[in-house]
Amino acid sequence: MSPFELLDYIGTAVFAISGALAAMRRKFDPFGVLILASVTAIGGGSLRDILVGNTPVGWMIHWNYLIIIFCATLVAMLFRTYLSYFRKTMFLFDAIGLGIFTIIGVEIGLNADLHPIICIILGTLSASFGGVLRDILCNEVPLIFHKEVYASLSIIGGIVFYGLLQTSLSININYVITSCLVVTLRVLAVRFRWILPKIYKEI
Amino acid sequence: MSPFELLDYIGTAVFAISGALAAMRRKFDPFGVLILASVTAIGGGSLRDILVGNTPVGWMIHWNYLIIIFCATLVAMLFRTYLSYFRKTMFLFDAIGLGIFTIIGVEIGLNADLHPIICIILGTLSASFGGVLRDILCNEVPLIFHKEVYASLSIIGGIVFYGLLQTSLSININYVITSCLVVTLRVLAVRFRWILPKIYKEI
Amino acid sequence: MSPFELLDYIGTAVFAISGALAAMRRKFDPFGVLILASVTAIGGGSLRDILVGNTPVGWMIHWNYLIIIFCATLVAMLFRTYLSYFRKTMFLFDAIGLGIFTIIGVEIGLNADLHPIICIILGTLSASFGGVLRDILCNEVPLIFHKEVYASLSIIGGIVFYGLLQTSLSININYVITSCLVVTLRVLAVRFRWILPKIYKEI
Repeated sequence: MSPFELLDYIGTAVFAISGALAAMRRKFDPFGVLILASVTAIGGGSLRDILVGNTPVGWMIHWNYLIIIFCATLVAMLFRTYLSYFRKTMFLFDAIGLGIFTIIGVEIGLNADLHPIICIILGTLSASFGGVLRDILCNEVPLIFHKEVYASLSIIGGIVFYGLLQTSLSININYVITSCLVVTLRVLAVRFRWILPKIYKEI
Repeated sequence: MSPFELLDYIGTAVFAISGALAAMRRKFDPFGVLILASVTAIGGGSLRDILVGNTPVGWMIHWNYLIIIFCATLVAMLFRTYLSYFRKTMFLFDAIGLGIFTIIGVEIGLNADLHPIICIILGTLSASFGGVLRDILCNEVPLIFHKEVYASLSIIGGIVFYGLLQTSLSININYVITSCLVVTLRVLAVRFRWILPKIYKEI
Repeated sequence: MSPFELLDYIGTAVFAISGALAAMRRKFDPFGVLILASVTAIGGGSLRDILVGNTPVGWMIHWNYLIIIFCATLVAMLFRTYLSYFRKTMFLFDAIGLGIFTIIGVEIGLNADLHPIICIILGTLSASFGGVLRDILCNEVPLIFHKEVYASLSIIGGIVFYGLLQTSLSININYVITSCLVVTLRVLAVRFRWILPKIYKEI
């Protein structure tokens, strides 16, 4: 298993957990919990693959993704009480997934010979779309539109990842740096309520 | 016309009727009724074809689907009063569509050489996504998230259909058995309020 | 730059402005304004390209679309007060986009050798889907389901455009005629509250 695959599996698992936690908070039945976990985990990657034209989409070919989602959902259900000792657990899992899927999206874009700017946007899309679907299905305002910065961190992560790719740095170290950067920024953003300045006039 | 095509046309028609009935209950204008009927009827199949990579998607190539939707919508409009003599009509049409599109999704997955488990998931997706779209556009909680079992029946249908495919049973009899099984289970599920057990602890 | 490209760029810009105006009315942060402008501008075209199988979708290959969206959003932010001197500005930009994207959708369908009726539906889909996404993300009832005729005008535009294509008329004149027709009809529809007759019995 390559470090890239490992990363992809971790991202899938954490997004699945974040989806499962959101579903349990809403008292969905076990099957609904599994659906929401799946949608959160593979929604962004599916959109990415569809937009680029990589069909059948990833999880249909390598079905170990589904096994991972199934196990992650089970873990989330069984250890729910333990997970919730940490406040805002879901938010942290969501942040890890945001960082990891940004990287994967950028890499897949580069493999498809797309322009670097498009690759960064693709990374942001695939990192945030699963969470947007999760929030819409839970009938909540998507995190992405919340006051604190969110998707912009994915853009920063994408730029840093692409920048480091141009250096002689090992790709695995690049993976670690970019993921940690995005998670750290997201934690800081929520902790200190970073918001984007309004640059237009309200009327 | 092969039995497979016939099945597909029937599924399209019943889903169109279920969408049209939902739209009329919401007092949409005739064009809105047609749109909702179309979305319900071809939403699941479009997602299926997009995920697998069968593009242009089915209804764009074989446009008799659109004729069927148009006629089914007209029938639903003209005979609305008769249809509503039967209580919960929409629910029954929805159940028939659920059974039929499960079968079609599984078959298309097998034709694309996907793993049987993926095929069953594809069947469930294509069977339930049209209805999810219909409910979202009507601003209702999707049937799929209701208390009674719904999508799980599609999974059972997919497993039974795939299992019978491995026997020497005629495919046409398999179509009939699987469809009837799903419809029967769905009726029983609603009648006796079957729900999935909660396996996680509420907090 | 061909007249066709020019048309596409104008359509992208006006839809971006309509999305940006809707987002500012909802007090989104600048990044949210940019996202909503982008979704409105490229949502319909992306769906069109995905359904037909033209992947990677348009804006991923020709990334000048993104530059246009960025500039249009900036213009909308900076000149917001001026734009709002004209009442219902957003509605007008939306109408122009509706006309232009109908034409582009029909042309792309014809290039993919689809049946004329499918091409007209493709035009309507790609013209209205961006606006539907915009309205859903803003948590409003999609314009398309409003009382006044909307998507039906896109169908009329598609039919007129296809009809004129069969004549010896220059394609550029056809572009102008069809766009103006759709915009005029939409203005009249809103002004005089055109609604479709209900042809089914209410119960």
